[in-house]
Amino acid sequence: MASNCSDVERSIKVLVKNFYTYAGKNDKMNRSEFHKMVGKDLSHILTNPHSKQGVDDLIKKLDANDDGKISFEEYWTIVSEIANKLSRQMANENKEGC
Amino acid sequence: MASNCSDVERSIKVLVKNFYTYAGKNDKMNRSEFHKMVGKDLSHILTNPHSKQGVDDLIKKLDANDDGKISFEEYWTIVSEIANKLSRQMANENKEGC
Repeated sequence: MASNCSDVERSIKVLVKNFYTYAGKNDKMNRSEFHKMVGKDLSHILTNPHSKQGVDDLIKKLDANDDGKISFEEYWTIVSEIANKLSRQMANENKEGC
Repeated sequence: MASNCSDVERSIKVLVKNFYTYAGKNDKMNRSEFHKMVGKDLSHILTNPHSKQGVDDLIKKLDANDDGKISFEEYWTIVSEIANKLSRQMANENKEGC
């Protein structure tokens, strides 16, 4: 990753690249790719990241067009929910999230 | 920052913490704090980050409730726009953004 990016720019790129690490050329994550991503990349911040039912419920909630796949926009919804949750924590407590 | 976080979790935290670096306890960025943030943290990804008019136009666009300040939700709008732009680039070209 180019060194002249700021931490903020680098962080946005990490989040975008992470989607394509799993979605690959298809531009969408399937169910098992999403399970893998949640278990590996969101295991501290999400509750029950390894519960099959919990992640399936999350997919149902995120899958706005009900095609059984997760698009970048649907993926960004969960990233934004986590960010908003962390923001409320930081606004209230100014403590580390994980 | 806790070492057991994943890169994705750490990146979300960097983006959230960055807001509070400028907003401090007030939970909102004022105009000059937003100018500083854009000039320092988004100077590679945004076009004309140092153009006063460009950033003022951005504030007008983001400031949904027109209070002259930028809330976390309004800040996250620009983060999401940048992420979507990068995502389209990566989907098309699979090249680095900056």
